[in-house]
Amino acid sequence: MKLNLYYWPSIQGRGEFVRLALEDAGARYVDVARLPKKQGGGAEALFAIMGRPGSPLRPFAPPILEVGKLVVAHTANILQVIGPRLGLVPDDERSRVAAHQLQLSVTDFVAEVHDTHHPIATNLYYEDQKVEARARSKLFTKQRMAKYLGYFESVLAANRANAKGKGPYALGRTSTYVDLSLFQVVEGLTYAFPKALRRLDKDIPLLLALRARVAARPRIAAYLASERRIPFNEDGIFRRYPELDP
Amino acid sequence: MKLNLYYWPSIQGRGEFVRLALEDAGARYVDVARLPKKQGGGAEALFAIMGRPGSPLRPFAPPILEVGKLVVAHTANILQVIGPRLGLVPDDERSRVAAHQLQLSVTDFVAEVHDTHHPIATNLYYEDQKVEARARSKLFTKQRMAKYLGYFESVLAANRANAKGKGPYALGRTSTYVDLSLFQVVEGLTYAFPKALRRLDKDIPLLLALRARVAARPRIAAYLASERRIPFNEDGIFRRYPELDP
Repeated sequence: MKLNLYYWPSIQGRGEFVRLALEDAGARYVDVARLPKKQGGGAEALFAIMGRPGSPLRPFAPPILEVGKLVVAHTANILQVIGPRLGLVPDDERSRVAAHQLQLSVTDFVAEVHDTHHPIATNLYYEDQKVEARARSKLFTKQRMAKYLGYFESVLAANRANAKGKGPYALGRTSTYVDLSLFQVVEGLTYAFPKALRRLDKDIPLLLALRARVAARPRIAAYLASERRIPFNEDGIFRRYPELDP
Repeated sequence: MKLNLYYWPSIQGRGEFVRLALEDAGARYVDVARLPKKQGGGAEALFAIMGRPGSPLRPFAPPILEVGKLVVAHTANILQVIGPRLGLVPDDERSRVAAHQLQLSVTDFVAEVHDTHHPIATNLYYEDQKVEARARSKLFTKQRMAKYLGYFESVLAANRANAKGKGPYALGRTSTYVDLSLFQVVEGLTYAFPKALRRLDKDIPLLLALRARVAARPRIAAYLASERRIPFNEDGIFRRYPELDP
């Protein structure tokens, strides 16, 4: 099955949630824009697939994944399409809907993380909205982080009490792509808001245990140690601006 | 099939995308929180389903739809679950994935609309972030509106040129829930940003034609004329603040 990922070649960004899923599944995929230009790589590859005229599936933005003959955009949509194909989610409707629902809350949270450094406009530089970024980050770290992380913690807690599907994962007994995304969220917050996250540590023991569990998965551990894992940086979604995490 | 919608009873908000789909399908549904309290309605009904302990499907936020035995949250997730069941999307994977992909771009756009009046924090009043709201709205109306509406227009244009599935809808020949959502987006912008939208009118003829086509659908027309359609107001997502649309 063809698995061609199209995402910005120099950041983790939203594409990283897809990369983690492909890596954990041990899938053979091509991270197209990271290929040398001679081999059809570079950001040009991205623009080409986004501009492909005449297709009703023309994507609004990356990440984009070619899955066989399908061209799929939007992180959560990609994950739900590859999930059952790659064994990253059980193939019954209840599980698929639950996983996608949790993933869409991850999507919303990630958008809020992005807006901590871009509260006024995506098209402006961070330097042009620093004052507003401080105001937004203050309320993000005080309220929104606790609300979202507390929500995910409560989902994990409910699973521990669920006699039927008891287990440490977002969906209970079986690990899914949602766990990989929750790992990435905690990793990202550790990079971007280490102080704010430390203040919440005691409230999210299950989430932190899940992060350690995912990091120890052999394929994930190998991926994180490889050059395929792009380091966090200040062009991505999770950015370390100390003034936003005082 | 049980179809119980849980959403804030006094606003259109994100729930309206679900209401439009249920209405267009002629589905028998209950808008639970709009029932009298004696009959189990009111915002209390919302809090009850959101707080239901022990369920791994506990939702993060409304809208929430009970679909038979499923409890589904997130607008786009709800629409993709009810879509094939209510004849609101063709039941092949390509169509479902395409519709959901477009719907997730609607979701992103709606979040950006929300943040025009709440750029710093959801938890603060508009009055406490008016200066930042003006800055964000200026760039929203100048850039983001044109980008998103232009994208949807280009999808419609591609469908007109698609010999196989030629038609005026987001997916070509067959109308889907996405068309209802695009109708709602244009309606909302007409309410919130009439001047900015008028400047774009000439660039989005297909989108405006789609809006008129949806408004003329018998069930939608009946719904819009009924008391079930809550008027736009300044507690919802699309708000008319003239200072944000100068």
